[in-house]
Amino acid sequence: MKTDKKHACPSTTHVTRGPLPASRKIHVGPLNVPLREITLENGKTFTTYDTSGPYTTDMELDIMRGIPKVRRPWIMKRGDVEEIQGRAIQPIDNGYKDRKAQHEPFPASPEKPLRAKSGANVTQMHYARQGLITPEMEYIAIRENQAREAVHEKAKLGESYGATLPDFITPEFVRDEVARGRAIIPANINHPEVEPMIIGRNFLVKINANIGNSAVTSSIGEEVDKMVWAIRWGADTVMDLSTGTDIHDTREWIIRNSPVPIGTVPIYQALEKTGGIAEDLTWEIYRDTLIEQAEQGVDYFTIHAGVRLPYIRHTQGRVTGIVSRGGAIMAKWCMTHHRESFLYTKFEEICDIMKAYDVSFSLGDGLRPGAVADANDRAQFAELETLGELTQIAWKHDVQTMIEGPGHVPMHLIKINMEKQLEICHEAPFYTLGPLTTDIAPGYDHITSGIGAAMIGHYGCAMLCYVTPKEHLGLPNRDDVKTGVITYKIAAHAADLAKGHPGAQFRDDALSQARFDFRWNDQFNLSLDPDTAREFHDETLPAEGAKEAHFCSMCGPKFCSMKITQDVRDFVANEDEQKEKKDAA
Amino acid sequence: MKTDKKHACPSTTHVTRGPLPASRKIHVGPLNVPLREITLENGKTFTTYDTSGPYTTDMELDIMRGIPKVRRPWIMKRGDVEEIQGRAIQPIDNGYKDRKAQHEPFPASPEKPLRAKSGANVTQMHYARQGLITPEMEYIAIRENQAREAVHEKAKLGESYGATLPDFITPEFVRDEVARGRAIIPANINHPEVEPMIIGRNFLVKINANIGNSAVTSSIGEEVDKMVWAIRWGADTVMDLSTGTDIHDTREWIIRNSPVPIGTVPIYQALEKTGGIAEDLTWEIYRDTLIEQAEQGVDYFTIHAGVRLPYIRHTQGRVTGIVSRGGAIMAKWCMTHHRESFLYTKFEEICDIMKAYDVSFSLGDGLRPGAVADANDRAQFAELETLGELTQIAWKHDVQTMIEGPGHVPMHLIKINMEKQLEICHEAPFYTLGPLTTDIAPGYDHITSGIGAAMIGHYGCAMLCYVTPKEHLGLPNRDDVKTGVITYKIAAHAADLAKGHPGAQFRDDALSQARFDFRWNDQFNLSLDPDTAREFHDETLPAEGAKEAHFCSMCGPKFCSMKITQDVRDFVANEDEQKEKKDAA
Repeated sequence: MKTDKKHACPSTTHVTRGPLPASRKIHVGPLNVPLREITLENGKTFTTYDTSGPYTTDMELDIMRGIPKVRRPWIMKRGDVEEIQGRAIQPIDNGYKDRKAQHEPFPASPEKPLRAKSGANVTQMHYARQGLITPEMEYIAIRENQAREAVHEKAKLGESYGATLPDFITPEFVRDEVARGRAIIPANINHPEVEPMIIGRNFLVKINANIGNSAVTSSIGEEVDKMVWAIRWGADTVMDLSTGTDIHDTREWIIRNSPVPIGTVPIYQALEKTGGIAEDLTWEIYRDTLIEQAEQGVDYFTIHAGVRLPYIRHTQGRVTGIVSRGGAIMAKWCMTHHRESFLYTKFEEICDIMKAYDVSFSLGDGLRPGAVADANDRAQFAELETLGELTQIAWKHDVQTMIEGPGHVPMHLIKINMEKQLEICHEAPFYTLGPLTTDIAPGYDHITSGIGAAMIGHYGCAMLCYVTPKEHLGLPNRDDVKTGVITYKIAAHAADLAKGHPGAQFRDDALSQARFDFRWNDQFNLSLDPDTAREFHDETLPAEGAKEAHFCSMCGPKFCSMKITQDVRDFVANEDEQKEKKDAA
Repeated sequence: MKTDKKHACPSTTHVTRGPLPASRKIHVGPLNVPLREITLENGKTFTTYDTSGPYTTDMELDIMRGIPKVRRPWIMKRGDVEEIQGRAIQPIDNGYKDRKAQHEPFPASPEKPLRAKSGANVTQMHYARQGLITPEMEYIAIRENQAREAVHEKAKLGESYGATLPDFITPEFVRDEVARGRAIIPANINHPEVEPMIIGRNFLVKINANIGNSAVTSSIGEEVDKMVWAIRWGADTVMDLSTGTDIHDTREWIIRNSPVPIGTVPIYQALEKTGGIAEDLTWEIYRDTLIEQAEQGVDYFTIHAGVRLPYIRHTQGRVTGIVSRGGAIMAKWCMTHHRESFLYTKFEEICDIMKAYDVSFSLGDGLRPGAVADANDRAQFAELETLGELTQIAWKHDVQTMIEGPGHVPMHLIKINMEKQLEICHEAPFYTLGPLTTDIAPGYDHITSGIGAAMIGHYGCAMLCYVTPKEHLGLPNRDDVKTGVITYKIAAHAADLAKGHPGAQFRDDALSQARFDFRWNDQFNLSLDPDTAREFHDETLPAEGAKEAHFCSMCGPKFCSMKITQDVRDFVANEDEQKEKKDAA
């Protein structure tokens, strides 16, 4: 659905359904862990990780009702949550002072949100530290292995930079990593629709896609569609960065229809509640917003608690100052009141909220560099020290925590970012935006940042936040979302390969073998974007017969080097035979 | 011009003319070295390297006549060349047995080609080793400095991995690098249209764009247009990889209209002369083709002389065998005749041809890996050893030489490629295709390879051969060429930045400063692709007034973090003032 009407009715939204080419969803084990099975023309199948949720099945779905709540029984069975009355939704939650939002609300919101029973801690980290293996952990173990038992036989190559990559992921390994804080499972008890996933450097590198409307553009329907579109192509989590009006309702539509964890930056909504005046923010407004969003089911919160009053002056000499929206808001607040940030002073109170719903921290890098000139400066690293300190506090409360990272960083300064983060933040997962390796290519920042993302993923970054071609220029549309996601799937996979992740090279080998065998359809279907691969091929050789041709438009029929390679095999076999005969004579 | 007719008349071709936005060509010094000057809205100007030739000036041009021959007087003045009768063009040169090509020949080809006088050696390397600073070297020194005297004041950061990057390039430095073989100036005496440029790791990282028709698609006119289009966006050299018929004439049109060095793979044309039968190739046919192309003005030849008979068997266990077309052709020849490659056995005779015209070697990597599974294997490195040996022979003849490199290489194996090449090939410039860091993204191989290209550029690679989105799928069209070029400009610049190339960060800083100042037009005009940056911005905020707006569609008017940063400056100034007052009291 494309619409110019800002408040267009989401019920008319059409999201993309149906499987990817030659693919079907399979469900593994009693927990029904979803994987994608690709059928090849040589009779084999190939299974791979699948983030697309029920949209790629033939399950009847209605975005007015939301998707199935797979985790609900697991959550209830633990017996440590209760249904509560919850916070009543107010006009201000959607940015209106005295009237209701102009569009329809989500018609099937859960009537009563869940919260931990008094004194209980419902985080996956808490369970892990109690030695409990949750269904979420079991689910993740199966999911990460991608049904590739054959990896056992594969020698591990690669340079892991200290990551520990077991041949086979067990539920116990998942539990142990979560207990140590080296991985998180973002899974709010009020987001039972989530198909559990894990973020940590000893697992597959994950990617995040940002969506969200702003005061200037986009409708709710478009955002739901973008979310479904982003996960179709492989987004592991989605952040709703909406600003302007209708924030609450936009988020409700997204969460109820999302099988992947949803992250937000709650300060954006808090600011809307003050009419956009940063200095009018209060702890009470912010706290109320956290509870609102926690009860709705947001899985992780970006909280810029490391932007401390004394660090603000370190940004003064920068080329682009403070570029993080959240960082800038908090800096403005601190300056106006000449007081330490309430995100920092109230951090333990925030932890109490997080653990009552199992919302994970994504500790924001409010002072990240916005230009290569500002990379790795005093402001950035001062904030990182504080994030390390806050990680310890969060862990004291068994609250799951990851750390956000830059930003704009030239290639030679990337590795030190990863090393410092691991050391200062005690191996809590790193979650970086890019980094962008140069400032000079607006319109192509998916590429400037894809380079940096692949590198930092290799060095140990656990999740890569995508950047779209529209970065610095505008809000991404549907095409931009796809380009951003595919670019970051490339970066994440290149990182997995380079780390020596067992099983990562399977897909490369399968695709290259198809390429060598001239199984064109398999080459397309094993690729990250079968539609584009096929379309590009067909631009020059559209005939269906060309899909079986032993040549392509690049070389033409006489020239194909792959064909000649077959001759090499015959040649070597013949040479060896001659030699054997000679030796025998 | 888009056409479906294979033999469409090139005279109807329209190439893109006119300057880039807010830009004008300036010519520096008595040699008229071209640079691009961008006029900024803050009254400043910014100069940058310019590969676009006369097409971005208002000079009257006619692709039927070719562009001005700037080097002709320099070449003649040296007194070591003579006009010769030259080799007569035959129907077979265009792939026809007994008839002429069906389209018009280039109407203004030079009647008589130049060749070194008997006993003379006309290579830039020869001059350099004689201690002679040629106009080409002076030209390059000015060009590489980009009129940025201010770089002197700039501290050099970066990790150069052993590259020597002087603050200021002098003609003597250029001469010395060429004499040592660490850099080459591809500049055939029969390509006087070339605006001299240099390839070496102590200079700016360069990029190459491949064009060329094949038996399946494309017309001559399209290829001329693609060449002009590629250099408009920054291609430093262009390779004409045409196959099929009309090879000679296509090349003539391209060379006569190209201000950048043109490279070819002569074995492609030689093979056409045998009707596509690799085993029918002979040294005589090949030698004749080298002379044909040298007399035409090709600046560098890819020659796969490292594909030796004993190495062929090392490719047997590979996933994708031999993927280089040239490598496969020679392997086929060697196997059929069970003889060592004539490219290897006749190498010194080839050197004699090269030095009579100053054609540079680009020693081909015929055994490069075509899949990550095949990276850095015995076949690849055996060939590299031979390329090192051949480099020494070429240098004995003072023939300029660079070395081609892979291919498909996962990130953790890239650095060792660069290190081995430097060591084995005695610091001759490395010229790599990508490398592609994963096999799983056909349709996006500009990105899979852009990651590897940026990395190997950082490690010391001198020139990066672009890969377009059509790689593995089809021949690039005009849009693909641009995408490939911009992606590789990003990789090259990211590498320059990371190496600490003096002056590289100037452009990042200028653009980021424009971004911070909300000079939207400057942000577009300083970018690698102003048209796309502007178009993307205007998708959401088309009004001309938005170009002066202190916000963008991402955050909206209330939210802009850049705006808040100004407050930081006021705050710090105020705090300092308070402190001073207090201290004084």
